[in-house]
Amino acid sequence: MTIDIITVVPELLESPFNHSIMKRAREKGLLTVRTHNLRKWAINKHMQVDDYQFGGGAGMVMMPEPLANAINELQQDKKFDEIIYMTPDGVSFNQKTANLLSMKENILIICGHYKGIDERIRQTYVTREISIGDYVLSGGELAAAVVVDAIGRLLPGVLNDETSALFDSFQDNLLAPPVYTRPADFRGDKVPEVLLQGDPKKVEEWRHEQSLQRTKERRPDLLDEE
Amino acid sequence: MTIDIITVVPELLESPFNHSIMKRAREKGLLTVRTHNLRKWAINKHMQVDDYQFGGGAGMVMMPEPLANAINELQQDKKFDEIIYMTPDGVSFNQKTANLLSMKENILIICGHYKGIDERIRQTYVTREISIGDYVLSGGELAAAVVVDAIGRLLPGVLNDETSALFDSFQDNLLAPPVYTRPADFRGDKVPEVLLQGDPKKVEEWRHEQSLQRTKERRPDLLDEE
Repeated sequence: MTIDIITVVPELLESPFNHSIMKRAREKGLLTVRTHNLRKWAINKHMQVDDYQFGGGAGMVMMPEPLANAINELQQDKKFDEIIYMTPDGVSFNQKTANLLSMKENILIICGHYKGIDERIRQTYVTREISIGDYVLSGGELAAAVVVDAIGRLLPGVLNDETSALFDSFQDNLLAPPVYTRPADFRGDKVPEVLLQGDPKKVEEWRHEQSLQRTKERRPDLLDEE
Repeated sequence: MTIDIITVVPELLESPFNHSIMKRAREKGLLTVRTHNLRKWAINKHMQVDDYQFGGGAGMVMMPEPLANAINELQQDKKFDEIIYMTPDGVSFNQKTANLLSMKENILIICGHYKGIDERIRQTYVTREISIGDYVLSGGELAAAVVVDAIGRLLPGVLNDETSALFDSFQDNLLAPPVYTRPADFRGDKVPEVLLQGDPKKVEEWRHEQSLQRTKERRPDLLDEE
């Protein structure tokens, strides 16, 4: 799978893709992430890629021309299955979308910055607008990193134990159960007995019960889905 | 404001905090972010901080002892207003929580990794469990970066133009309106007339109408709040 990212701050994305699981995914050749500095397609020698917004108001807007040229040039190399724009007014990202996107071949992600990108680019090129949550960030870069991480770990072979992702929160609309490790007694605080008794069936029942209870308490909305 | 972050992959957080708006916030002395490698509090010379989970199953769990020791040591320097654990089964992060947290003095964030942290740490130390969205990441680091960014940009003086954040999506339960910049005619695609006519009242009306319409179409759930 390949993911191309257009950004005005490529430096910001250096460390997230060079460590931990993303690093492993790249080293195994399962995921190729390339960042492209939008200023390469700036309209003048001042490296301009943004301008004041029409109608007035605070905040700069990313111009249509550099973005259109960047997209067109990158499209010459490959066909993108999705051109995604990261924006707080997009569709809320969730595990279902992560699963779906992890099955694509080539994805292009545009990171907004400042007030966002010119609306005409959204209408002409973008196939999917994604928000990672109901809050505003200083740019789309961290949001893109989140999406790449969520997708990347689902690629077969990226996680050490492929069964691991199946028990994550959200894969079955339930939150994950509590987890415990050594010591069994930590400063007087003990691990639930059932986890120490070695009866896999009882452990499974307990975990399901805990998942259900936690979901009811914290996220009853998840239980209403489907 | 200070934010301390406990993580097993401090490298991953290097670039997000050293560029763009977060860099500016740090340089202006408005925000101090310090990352702490949990392995500093490892229980043995193998730098162990995680172990198999009780009850069996794939994925390692972060041990209680290194975390408790890390928290205790950091608490000797300052009183934390919040000890936050980043986890997909936490409470959904939103702009309201970002606003609230931006008014705190000292925050400690624990990044989960692998299957998460031992439940006893959550019950004993953690004051707030936050999920940045309904999806699973390979660790809490990017989630922490997202929270720090969302909070950091709200600190007075961080954004160039303080009025800018007021018009963001979510601040009034509405998505932001479309934005446009030069040229007014981009390859035949024109900017809406009202934005070019210079009547601030009409522009304001149009933007509000667009915000409302976009929110109705994309996120009707936001209109039901309050």
